[in-house]
Amino acid sequence: MVLYGYWRSSAAYRVRIALNLKGLDYESRPVHLINNGGEQHAPEFQALNPQELVPCLVDQGRVLTQSMAIMEYLDETRPTPALLPADPAGRARVRALAQVVGCDIHPLGNLRVLQHLVTQFGADDAAKGVWSRHWIGLGLQALETMLAGNVATGRFCHGDSPSMADACLVPQVYNAVRWKMPMDDYPTIRRIHEACQALDAFQRAVPEAQPDAPKGS
Amino acid sequence: MVLYGYWRSSAAYRVRIALNLKGLDYESRPVHLINNGGEQHAPEFQALNPQELVPCLVDQGRVLTQSMAIMEYLDETRPTPALLPADPAGRARVRALAQVVGCDIHPLGNLRVLQHLVTQFGADDAAKGVWSRHWIGLGLQALETMLAGNVATGRFCHGDSPSMADACLVPQVYNAVRWKMPMDDYPTIRRIHEACQALDAFQRAVPEAQPDAPKGS
Repeated sequence: MVLYGYWRSSAAYRVRIALNLKGLDYESRPVHLINNGGEQHAPEFQALNPQELVPCLVDQGRVLTQSMAIMEYLDETRPTPALLPADPAGRARVRALAQVVGCDIHPLGNLRVLQHLVTQFGADDAAKGVWSRHWIGLGLQALETMLAGNVATGRFCHGDSPSMADACLVPQVYNAVRWKMPMDDYPTIRRIHEACQALDAFQRAVPEAQPDAPKGS
Repeated sequence: MVLYGYWRSSAAYRVRIALNLKGLDYESRPVHLINNGGEQHAPEFQALNPQELVPCLVDQGRVLTQSMAIMEYLDETRPTPALLPADPAGRARVRALAQVVGCDIHPLGNLRVLQHLVTQFGADDAAKGVWSRHWIGLGLQALETMLAGNVATGRFCHGDSPSMADACLVPQVYNAVRWKMPMDDYPTIRRIHEACQALDAFQRAVPEAQPDAPKGS
């Protein structure tokens, strides 16, 4: 398998976690989202993913895009260990937790969105920070309530093994810390984040451990 | 089943399509997103969905949130007719198409995001239109390429029966038209949209047909 990604892409980070949790080997092909005018806009990459976004996973000639769709695919083609529970209600809960991050937090703080805030509204770095922290804060507060108030929450987001929800949560916490979000209000998220970080699969997926991370980052 | 929604919510619209395609009866409980300071922020609704967003589906006491997670749940608990194909590659394609809408177009033009552009950047109606059309245009262009260039595309997004991808696409086209997007550049999307609109399940789900739609809208 070949994973087209970028060390600091939150969506690529999710897929790296999923691949590692399943013990799958893959070749990493970095796509630099800033250098060379953004390598994701190059014709060769656009031919793989017309959205010009990472990640993109190629498995036996199949070109897969959208991180949550990729994780579902990995779970269907390599079922063990599972990234989703077995029961429909549990699966719906894990997917909803993943989608709070994937649909309602991350898309609003994406690189291309921040770039467009500059173009359209002249946002400076401070304004980008205010914007990002607003959406991350709203999302993490909702997640904290969903996690803290539910008996299905265990050592991880759902029970005692990591799921697709944890693979989304951890990169989002990474982004929150990058934007200097105070994390005191989210004790359950912090506890789960810590449990994830103790696992080798999560450790090997961190941005700074990727081949395209700048040295010393 | 009880569906908490709002006539013009694009995410609630998706779930209405899915429920109709499966021939499921449901009680509609409107949550007005603007009146009364936004009824989604009321404590009773917040207790159902801490995200304070619609849709929210209650099925036999199970509270389900996030439209794409809800559609997956419906597909797992009421498998016929299927909203996803049977093969993992096809399922990954349908999910990716759905997520282009659900993760990369719709979240950026959501009501709460437009309201925040006003608060933080003083955006007027014209600026909100420019912003919305920018993201809808990027997304529809990518979708058009993904659909037009793939033999798996049929009468609908994937083959000849409607899927989760169509349930996401049609509400997004509704939004595009609302923002006066020229649709000439998206012939495949227009063709699929027309095929969907010919179906009763899609017709009954349109915003104007909902009990909470203003009279004459």
